[in-house]
Amino acid sequence: MLPRGRPRALGAAALLLLLLLLGFLLFGGDLGCERREPGGRAGAPGCFPGPLMPRVPPDGRLRRAAALDGDPGAGPGDHNRSDCGPQPPPPPKCELLHVAIVCAGHNSSRDVITLVKSMLFYRKNPLHLHLVTDAVARNILETLFHTWMVPAVRVSFYHADQLKPQVSWIPNKHYSGLYGLMKLVLPSALPAELARVIVLDTDVTFASDISELWALFAHFSDTQAIGLVENQSDWYLGNLWKNHRPWPALGRGFNTGVILLRLDRLRQAGWEQMWRLTARRELLSLPATSLADQDIFNAVIKEHPGLVQRLPCVWNVQLSDHTLAERCYSEASDLKVIHWNSPKKLRVKNKHVEFFRNFYLTFLEYDGNLLRRELFVCPSQPPPGAEQLQQALAQLDEEDPCFEFRQQQLTVHRVHVTFLPHEPPPPRPHDVTLVAQLSMDRLQMLEALCRHWPGPMSLALYLTDAEAQQFLHFVEASPVLAARQDVAYHVVYREGPLYPVNQLRNVALAQALTPYVFLSDIDFLPAYSLYDYLRASIEQLGLGSWRKAALVVPAFETLRYRFSFPHSKVELLALLDAGTLYTFRYHEWPRGHAPTDYARWREAQAPYRVQWAADYEPYVVVPRDCPRYDPRFVGFGWNKVAHIVELDAQEYELLVLPEAFTIHLPHAPSLDISRFRSSPTYRDCLQALKDEFHQDLSRHHGAAALKYLPALQQPQSPARG
Amino acid sequence: MLPRGRPRALGAAALLLLLLLLGFLLFGGDLGCERREPGGRAGAPGCFPGPLMPRVPPDGRLRRAAALDGDPGAGPGDHNRSDCGPQPPPPPKCELLHVAIVCAGHNSSRDVITLVKSMLFYRKNPLHLHLVTDAVARNILETLFHTWMVPAVRVSFYHADQLKPQVSWIPNKHYSGLYGLMKLVLPSALPAELARVIVLDTDVTFASDISELWALFAHFSDTQAIGLVENQSDWYLGNLWKNHRPWPALGRGFNTGVILLRLDRLRQAGWEQMWRLTARRELLSLPATSLADQDIFNAVIKEHPGLVQRLPCVWNVQLSDHTLAERCYSEASDLKVIHWNSPKKLRVKNKHVEFFRNFYLTFLEYDGNLLRRELFVCPSQPPPGAEQLQQALAQLDEEDPCFEFRQQQLTVHRVHVTFLPHEPPPPRPHDVTLVAQLSMDRLQMLEALCRHWPGPMSLALYLTDAEAQQFLHFVEASPVLAARQDVAYHVVYREGPLYPVNQLRNVALAQALTPYVFLSDIDFLPAYSLYDYLRASIEQLGLGSWRKAALVVPAFETLRYRFSFPHSKVELLALLDAGTLYTFRYHEWPRGHAPTDYARWREAQAPYRVQWAADYEPYVVVPRDCPRYDPRFVGFGWNKVAHIVELDAQEYELLVLPEAFTIHLPHAPSLDISRFRSSPTYRDCLQALKDEFHQDLSRHHGAAALKYLPALQQPQSPARG
Repeated sequence: MLPRGRPRALGAAALLLLLLLLGFLLFGGDLGCERREPGGRAGAPGCFPGPLMPRVPPDGRLRRAAALDGDPGAGPGDHNRSDCGPQPPPPPKCELLHVAIVCAGHNSSRDVITLVKSMLFYRKNPLHLHLVTDAVARNILETLFHTWMVPAVRVSFYHADQLKPQVSWIPNKHYSGLYGLMKLVLPSALPAELARVIVLDTDVTFASDISELWALFAHFSDTQAIGLVENQSDWYLGNLWKNHRPWPALGRGFNTGVILLRLDRLRQAGWEQMWRLTARRELLSLPATSLADQDIFNAVIKEHPGLVQRLPCVWNVQLSDHTLAERCYSEASDLKVIHWNSPKKLRVKNKHVEFFRNFYLTFLEYDGNLLRRELFVCPSQPPPGAEQLQQALAQLDEEDPCFEFRQQQLTVHRVHVTFLPHEPPPPRPHDVTLVAQLSMDRLQMLEALCRHWPGPMSLALYLTDAEAQQFLHFVEASPVLAARQDVAYHVVYREGPLYPVNQLRNVALAQALTPYVFLSDIDFLPAYSLYDYLRASIEQLGLGSWRKAALVVPAFETLRYRFSFPHSKVELLALLDAGTLYTFRYHEWPRGHAPTDYARWREAQAPYRVQWAADYEPYVVVPRDCPRYDPRFVGFGWNKVAHIVELDAQEYELLVLPEAFTIHLPHAPSLDISRFRSSPTYRDCLQALKDEFHQDLSRHHGAAALKYLPALQQPQSPARG
Repeated sequence: MLPRGRPRALGAAALLLLLLLLGFLLFGGDLGCERREPGGRAGAPGCFPGPLMPRVPPDGRLRRAAALDGDPGAGPGDHNRSDCGPQPPPPPKCELLHVAIVCAGHNSSRDVITLVKSMLFYRKNPLHLHLVTDAVARNILETLFHTWMVPAVRVSFYHADQLKPQVSWIPNKHYSGLYGLMKLVLPSALPAELARVIVLDTDVTFASDISELWALFAHFSDTQAIGLVENQSDWYLGNLWKNHRPWPALGRGFNTGVILLRLDRLRQAGWEQMWRLTARRELLSLPATSLADQDIFNAVIKEHPGLVQRLPCVWNVQLSDHTLAERCYSEASDLKVIHWNSPKKLRVKNKHVEFFRNFYLTFLEYDGNLLRRELFVCPSQPPPGAEQLQQALAQLDEEDPCFEFRQQQLTVHRVHVTFLPHEPPPPRPHDVTLVAQLSMDRLQMLEALCRHWPGPMSLALYLTDAEAQQFLHFVEASPVLAARQDVAYHVVYREGPLYPVNQLRNVALAQALTPYVFLSDIDFLPAYSLYDYLRASIEQLGLGSWRKAALVVPAFETLRYRFSFPHSKVELLALLDAGTLYTFRYHEWPRGHAPTDYARWREAQAPYRVQWAADYEPYVVVPRDCPRYDPRFVGFGWNKVAHIVELDAQEYELLVLPEAFTIHLPHAPSLDISRFRSSPTYRDCLQALKDEFHQDLSRHHGAAALKYLPALQQPQSPARG
């Protein structure tokens, strides 16, 4: 690089004079008053008019084109580099880095998690995420981060709704909607003491350590406040098509997918006034923003070029449809951030898209559990609950034959609630949500279940990160599933060898939004009429507040694959008599459903009360606030039985519904079952769990719990699941 | 860091004198003759006696301990750093980096792939891998790299067997066996023109770009030839237990899991002589090496300390049982290479093992397909076949409704043959291998299959990288599966939306090692006696060279889960008569097996010949060199039918065996099936495939192919798989 300090300094001085003059002419000194901090401390406000110190001539096209064509790191705004190469010094070891992201809705919440995974993979610093979210994203991300327990990551939430009035007056045509515009109000929305922040769009992926990006703050001159990468398309040149009228920008303008913000300086410079005035003025002649906040940032920068520090292009490699990014990445040995800034996202036409997609897929499918890794070098406050968890885990004895059970019980699974778009059901007093849990090998049940149950469902899925993506594609490819907005899918990420069946049920149960829930299992198909019939029965019987009852849905099973589902109780009874159907587990474990009294059910015209007995595990409809499942039962065995014991102990009436039924379909035994049923220690461990369950039961219910003791001391049938 | 150039130079000069003297006393000038290259070019050999220029005092304990305790980058051998920080300059852009790895057997082959994945993930340079392998590893890795098609990676293989005589005379107690010692002979085994190489153990994982490691060659003085990280345990201090007598080493010695070798200098310095003499001498008083090559490297270095350049500890963070590595990694912000150098590997006791395990699991489970990414910046020769593949893919029309089929057909799947330890069956003239393919959802069939088929099997598994690990654990946890060494599992890595059923069959078929194969499907269980019966029948009938025949194994099915498998044809016929069993697809698609003529089979006492008819798809036993399956049939449909057409076109006799049978067990339809059967374009695309198949058939068999035309023009039954 040629030495150019002297001529630039002269040129800058000349430009400064020119711009000061212009500034006075245009604004009469009203705007751009910056409070300078002599010696780094807040001093007496020293005000000078007009735009800040310009480092870039307003028409810098030629030089910017050179930056795109050649040296990927050097824009014309870069100050002279030292001989040590293009790397700025790393930020102080263990410095807390702040990142702000605006995120709204189900789909963006999934996107942001991929971004966060890529960031965490490479980071070596503690991070503080500032998330501006709508209610949907907040519910998802709060649960996710709470259960993710990543060390050295703090998360703060900000209400997007409260920021809406500040930007809703701006007409906007960009697909990001109102939320894109919210980046403009971050200087006032984020805490006043926060001086610097990296602002990211949800559609970027890191391919490097974010501290290298943070380190670029050190390149800012005393007056620069916004770090941006040049736009890698010709959009702002205004010659894409006839009558294409983009917002004003310096040359190609800047892309706002990745921003370094000196919040302190922006606040001092009167940023809020600044962008509003610019936007209002431009909107006199332009109908709306096309690219949301980016149009306004560019218009402000065109007026105040001294605000901007150009970042090396590798920090925002833009994969829009007609991107010029190749000029950047074909020279750079090191891509830092990839930006999927086409509405087509991964389906964008780009001859190298496979290359970039591989980066994205890496983190999309990456096991987020692996990011729960300490930063040894930077001791930090452990995430809430992490210390107790560590202690509990440390107390386990690896030689204990039930070690795997104990460990699995303590495992905190990462949970992504409402993984896919979901519309909560309208509030209806007797509505029922079907609650169940499944893993990948039962996905093919979902379509049939949707046909049998037209009402809301809350389903917990036990998946790896990669499987969650397969699941997403599965739903998108199924017209039956894609049409249903009332089915909420909650992904619980796999961890550990035992299936956490009751933890899954509790996740699905906690997310049910109707007053009643039907606690089912995924391999059962309910009678076509069951949803309507249950709502009618709930209304008639009055569950819940004034009657603590559990409505029993009698369970049947078929051993055949091809099977014509009965449309009525009459048809069902015919099949039962023909030997095509059986009562559930009739051959292996009749005790599980014996108290339902199938003989009485055949004749029954009205609901009838039955008594609890050992091993009873009917499928029931209960109020949403029913007792939770006991999460100590992991793997297979006693998980539902214990729940019914708890219902009985809490004096729920058990009422069998005369027209209700549900039918179990055959399936190959799951891997989890076959793995553990054959294990000789399995039953011993299950007995230990049952003993502990009974101790807790006695603690809560006193002598009343004695009733359950014999049931708890029976050996477990090996064939049960 | 204090300036210490002057005192060190003085100390080094004094030491040099001392060592020159010692060298003369010990070797009389025979050894350590180095050919120096004045001005970097090979000149007249300038010989000087004794060890090379020492940079480290022979007893450097104190200073080395300081290195372990403090600055993670700086060992006492480091030359002064510039002010630019600890990073050496990167190697010239696009420089080809050479890596040598010794790898033998099934388990090490799996390990080395994880290492290679981590290396490829971070690398930005073209790589040349030099793999010293036994026959097993070579077969695995050659197939793997050939099908992996990673751009800018070249692989050369070297025969470990040929190197054995050079090291087999050394008694060795280390778990790496003879292969560990082979690192010693790399200077002569690798091509003479190769000057520098990074040597890696199979149990290391990269957490950074290997070019940074390569760049450390620049730190070598003119005489240094071996770059090593200090040993992070007290082993070589010789005080671990009473009478603990390790091999001689400088202080803590060095770990040889990661080595930078200047092969040129070692060759010139007479390395081969050097290490042999040292080893022979030490073996006079020591019974064997305990740590294989590492003992010998350390003994040589103790004698010739000038050979060694100390590398920063982060380049070989050693997780042995009583490691001192924490002193290194707790200070370093950046770990570069993790070394699982305990025989316990991931189960090593280390309070931070979770942290390191997460790195390892990242690459263990990483989708290797994502590493097929170009190095834009460094244009390179594409891997063999890649260019044609790219062209073929580029010619596909994304708007073609059968685009997914076309793309899937062209997909080259990464293949890992004999994923688990496997003993080839002893050569027997009439032996039969059961050939089948499966994905994760059929894993639970394997145990039953092993009980039914006591002979060799060759099974292709269609899995993701993460599923391959689950599969590994599944086999390890099953006593039935773990006991079988004659079952070869070949992992074909998933890519694309359609199940490549015939490609999988061909992988399994190609790996069968017996003269005959039984072409089965995973959801069938053969009669218990079938393996013996087939071998006897093959002997009697004389398949293969003098009789081109396909032996038909009649197929049946049960629709019931719980089912008692018949032990004889008599029992089978009784179940058939009782309606518990049916002939296969009796209800949905009797044409598929009608030509088998079940009525005749009931009575048959001897094999009988049957004629091909449309849609016939029996399960057959054929010689191993039978026609391959047509890989164009992806997804479900016509995949077996086409194979039988090909057999018939090649004039194989179809002989039904009177005592043979196999029974299909029920299972839920796989996801792949349900996804595509419902698609309306699916049948159209299948018809297009059939048309193309027939064109090829006509091309090969001429007018004889006309016979099959009507069959190919029939619509496909929707219920078939």
